[in-house]
Amino acid sequence: MIKLAIDGMGGDFAPEPIVKGSIEALNKYDNIEIILFGDQEKMAPYLIEHDRLKVIHTESYLDMGVENPVFEFRNNKEHSLFKAMQYVKDGHADAVVTAGPTQAVVVGGQLILKKMKKMKRVAIAPIIPSYDRQGKLMLDSGANVDLEAEHILDLAIYASIVAEEVLKRNKPKVALINIGEEEGKGRALDREAYELLKNNKNINFVGNIEPKEVFTHEADVLVTDGFTGNIVMKSMEGTAKGLGMILEREIKSKLRNKIGYLFMKPALKNFKKSLDASEIGGALVIGLNHTLIKAHGSSNDFAFYNAIRQAKEMVEKDVINKVSKILNEEEWLNERIFKNIKHSI
Amino acid sequence: MIKLAIDGMGGDFAPEPIVKGSIEALNKYDNIEIILFGDQEKMAPYLIEHDRLKVIHTESYLDMGVENPVFEFRNNKEHSLFKAMQYVKDGHADAVVTAGPTQAVVVGGQLILKKMKKMKRVAIAPIIPSYDRQGKLMLDSGANVDLEAEHILDLAIYASIVAEEVLKRNKPKVALINIGEEEGKGRALDREAYELLKNNKNINFVGNIEPKEVFTHEADVLVTDGFTGNIVMKSMEGTAKGLGMILEREIKSKLRNKIGYLFMKPALKNFKKSLDASEIGGALVIGLNHTLIKAHGSSNDFAFYNAIRQAKEMVEKDVINKVSKILNEEEWLNERIFKNIKHSI
Repeated sequence: MIKLAIDGMGGDFAPEPIVKGSIEALNKYDNIEIILFGDQEKMAPYLIEHDRLKVIHTESYLDMGVENPVFEFRNNKEHSLFKAMQYVKDGHADAVVTAGPTQAVVVGGQLILKKMKKMKRVAIAPIIPSYDRQGKLMLDSGANVDLEAEHILDLAIYASIVAEEVLKRNKPKVALINIGEEEGKGRALDREAYELLKNNKNINFVGNIEPKEVFTHEADVLVTDGFTGNIVMKSMEGTAKGLGMILEREIKSKLRNKIGYLFMKPALKNFKKSLDASEIGGALVIGLNHTLIKAHGSSNDFAFYNAIRQAKEMVEKDVINKVSKILNEEEWLNERIFKNIKHSI
Repeated sequence: MIKLAIDGMGGDFAPEPIVKGSIEALNKYDNIEIILFGDQEKMAPYLIEHDRLKVIHTESYLDMGVENPVFEFRNNKEHSLFKAMQYVKDGHADAVVTAGPTQAVVVGGQLILKKMKKMKRVAIAPIIPSYDRQGKLMLDSGANVDLEAEHILDLAIYASIVAEEVLKRNKPKVALINIGEEEGKGRALDREAYELLKNNKNINFVGNIEPKEVFTHEADVLVTDGFTGNIVMKSMEGTAKGLGMILEREIKSKLRNKIGYLFMKPALKNFKKSLDASEIGGALVIGLNHTLIKAHGSSNDFAFYNAIRQAKEMVEKDVINKVSKILNEEEWLNERIFKNIKHSI
């Protein structure tokens, strides 16, 4: 039985979509057990009796606009998010799922679940939409403002395993986000990361990708530092939002457009759906000792259900142990190379 | 009379749209004279007799895929782009307009037109679309992989003057592209740039902008380093292209959508138009001693006409001298502050 600790109070519309999404997941998968952390009274209207659903009441929960999660953590470990994390840390469950505030999720992950011994950084890896409807993992999307080339390599190895095991890609293709396709493009960081990625046997590196190909490129995993990844994510979000607004303005401007809109409504709805993160799931917070999924703050039932599904698959496929094993080998390999170099000097 | 040196052979479809756009501009503005540089024979089919149009034949021109423009410059100064630049440098004309390859335009600008004495870097500043149809200047969009905070400040001052004089904005609002709105967000570079921008009397700084607001934010000028600016531009381009493809797939998927499409065609055309760079003009290459406009490589007649209009306005409004004057004052001010600091130590 896979046990999932769920933060019942995280998210813009919590607890309703969280509880409903959890029940949906319980009905769909009979190998999961869900433990909901949160305000029992607030969750009550949506709860049902279920033999694989348990509720643990918490006195408090984090505000979605929380500004200093480190301070919150130091002063109150009773917040629903932190309690769910501690429950997993203590070995009572296998993974945490939350739609809570990103920064607090990353901070809590590092302070409670703790970084994997071999991972130097934690990263956020959402699945971004693509033309082929498959989605791509993009990381780091904002956990680290600065990253070094070797951190990007670690992230690429981790994400490759996730892409293979959870997204079911065969030899997942990894690309480095950059301002040009050719080798040698970009900042010193990008050139260093290119070298490391190219020479690593654990990943299938296909070179640089310019973000103008972000919807259509063949890669399964896109890697970059957390500043750049965040800028790409937010540029995509801003462009999609802006284009949607412009399209709406055009449609409303004339009667004939409105008539056309009635015909095209299902197409436009599908169009919107294909951009919708809820179809794919949440972002993985990777680099920790336990599986942690951060669903979008504005998640509806279905989006949250999908985030739970991701957590379940991460645990089923034993992703964390697989990553840990490869990173251990990497280190062993690097040490050996290093010794040989020293020896030859 | 404003004299404009035009690279007749730059651009994916040159010389046709270049010559046609030039003639359009001549017909529209009677205070400009155009000197077209390029292959006389290739341009001939589109040329007309005009008392303010002059053609200077050049034996060669740059390929749009040129990989080493510095090498080209050293070996052949007869390329149409370089000849047009030299013509301006020698004082025979006031500005250069080209749809040639970006890197060659920047390199030629630096080697022939030369950097303005007080500008430490050259930058590319396209006008990006916005919901209010006004457009915003965004820079640097890719001339420099690395920039320092003081370079970003210089760019902000320059772009503010362009926004005021050419885009007719009153007290143009300048924003710093960043991963969060609050002061203190971003990399060390962003925090330093924020400080400099906030404390400068020559610009109307409104704080950080996240790229998710790129279509809707009130700012007239968006500044960042050339790596980030290029990533934002290409993410916008990729998202717009990807969404367009998805929308097309949806429309084609069912008959009712196709019917709807017939009704909505003008709206969708307007929609596409509002994203089209040709409606706004070319990118300014700023920081040089002379006005240089880089039109999009795929420019049609109208796009190129618009780039010419921009060049004309830059010259009319004497932007370069105005920038130069302010930067001179800046330097004087900085020196004085520096002396005072030294004195007080």
